Amino acid sequence: MSVQAIAWSPSGAVRIVDQRALPEARIERDLESAEAVADAIRTLQLRGAPLIGIAAAMGLVAGTRGLRGAAREAFLGRLAALVELLAASRPTAVNLRWALDRMARAAAGTAGDGSAIWERLHAEATAIWEEDRAMCRRIGEVGLPLVPDGAKVLTHCNAGALATGGIGTALAPIYLAHEAGRRVHVFVDETRPVLQGARLTAWELVHAGIPCTVIADGAAGALMRQAQVDLVIVGADRIAANGDFANKIGTYALAVLALHHGVPFYCAAPSSTIDPSLADGEGIPIEQRAAEEVKTVAGRLVAPAAAAALNPAFDVTPARYVTGYVTDRGMRRPPFGDGDRA
Amino acid sequence: MSVQAIAWSPSGAVRIVDQRALPEARIERDLESAEAVADAIRTLQLRGAPLIGIAAAMGLVAGTRGLRGAAREAFLGRLAALVELLAASRPTAVNLRWALDRMARAAAGTAGDGSAIWERLHAEATAIWEEDRAMCRRIGEVGLPLVPDGAKVLTHCNAGALATGGIGTALAPIYLAHEAGRRVHVFVDETRPVLQGARLTAWELVHAGIPCTVIADGAAGALMRQAQVDLVIVGADRIAANGDFANKIGTYALAVLALHHGVPFYCAAPSSTIDPSLADGEGIPIEQRAAEEVKTVAGRLVAPAAAAALNPAFDVTPARYVTGYVTDRGMRRPPFGDGDRA
Repeated sequence: MSVQAIAWSPSGAVRIVDQRALPEARIERDLESAEAVADAIRTLQLRGAPLIGIAAAMGLVAGTRGLRGAAREAFLGRLAALVELLAASRPTAVNLRWALDRMARAAAGTAGDGSAIWERLHAEATAIWEEDRAMCRRIGEVGLPLVPDGAKVLTHCNAGALATGGIGTALAPIYLAHEAGRRVHVFVDETRPVLQGARLTAWELVHAGIPCTVIADGAAGALMRQAQVDLVIVGADRIAANGDFANKIGTYALAVLALHHGVPFYCAAPSSTIDPSLADGEGIPIEQRAAEEVKTVAGRLVAPAAAAALNPAFDVTPARYVTGYVTDRGMRRPPFGDGDRA
Repeated sequence: MSVQAIAWSPSGAVRIVDQRALPEARIERDLESAEAVADAIRTLQLRGAPLIGIAAAMGLVAGTRGLRGAAREAFLGRLAALVELLAASRPTAVNLRWALDRMARAAAGTAGDGSAIWERLHAEATAIWEEDRAMCRRIGEVGLPLVPDGAKVLTHCNAGALATGGIGTALAPIYLAHEAGRRVHVFVDETRPVLQGARLTAWELVHAGIPCTVIADGAAGALMRQAQVDLVIVGADRIAANGDFANKIGTYALAVLALHHGVPFYCAAPSSTIDPSLADGEGIPIEQRAAEEVKTVAGRLVAPAAAAALNPAFDVTPARYVTGYVTDRGMRRPPFGDGDRA
């Protein structure tokens, strides 16, 4: 069974699994405020585009618990400040902004004072979470035919249960194939610099009893050359209207390698990841993270202190490399003009 | 100025820089026996195909210092055992076997008892080292026209001063370009799992004052797409007669990416790396190292203990991906039928 990455605590805080501590330890944290959620997002205690959106929505609820006695204007004013605070915690994933906008609209459209608005926000955040869980399942069902018995699937980063409110996006078809009794083997790119593949994807697959093999990112090409990979499935942080998409750094190289070796390459994501306001991938902002993430591993310096390092968190894969987009609305092809999130 | 990776100690031991400790500390070790050299090779205290060959030759000398008073047969018997011991320390690099065979031939061809043979072995090992140093310089001269002022070069693993007795193979043209006053920028693949790029290549470039930027291996594709890379130069552990070559895992993926982006891709190596007994790359034995190298970083587990990991140390890049072979005998193209090492 897949792990549950997020939940309400009994007191209404946002309960998360601190993903920085995996796989060594499973630490649950109750984030009591929106600030704590923003900080958790910024410091990668939780990550994954869908999960970030859910956490931000839930963070607004946890962060306004103390304002249930407030007047309408005071509540909305504070809410707006928290929306901006949370929106600034990560720049690339579109789900974050989408979830926050949806929460803000729900608040604005609810009559009454703090108490009434808060109740509505609680229901809205829970709905975002539940919809995500259902969306993961639908992505899994759409992608299930791609994963026959005996399939060898390569994935990058973590687009699994730890990245969503449900069974993940890229991993959803794999969970359902496993559930259906099919033998599946997953090659997991360790995904430097933050090692989400080794630390998170391998952990949740082992937790679910799905056979997997961790590889250094540089080994994926050689594996494909040896015909060890039947298909690649990755997630997405943002998809432009023409199908170009941003995902963890290294995704683009995988897409080139898959094309070169005739290996099908799928992008699995909820429709909310599609940003119809962006014509193509050139407009997707790419977060540049600290050089120290590359230069240190587990707190130890692995490059000379005097050396520079580049650390783009994401890269953009043009649509022409993508065999298909596995979404909750079926297997899709661009252009996506449909403004799912409007 | 480039670093010196190997030398004789005053007492005749093999003095090395323990590359496991870099970049945090520069630790020199005097290896007093052939066993210590074999162990140092096996545990990656020193690595790099040319350096391993030199170290093995010098290890035979250090390991027979105590037998200078021995009779011929006793000396040669012990020498043969040490040759086998050292040959087994790493399976892929051809230089190791080549250097050991050359030492064994020198011994067999020298009249007299232990003392005379030992003197000859000392001279032969020193010659192997000095020839390597000169070879590095010639590789640098051959490759120098590839590195004009302002060049942005990507390299993988470490094929520099720390991999040879001189200024390296892949890095030799870069050292000479820098020496000639050209501005060069080197993008350094960190090269998981052992991080030879981040730990060694960046360290020796910083030591020499050559600007460099460390990147996660997965970032190389995105950099090429952004036209940030003018050329790729890598080393080789073994080159087959048709030009297929084995090098650090991840090299093949880089070659595919370079071809896809129209970036010239060069393999720099001494002619002794060419193994004319191998028709093509299929015959190159690929060392499989322990899963723990992938699953741990700096002693910390970064993947679940229950997860499997694959750890091929090398991959094979077919000749068709290679723009040119930068060797001490000039810029070459296969087939190499010339048996340089015979």
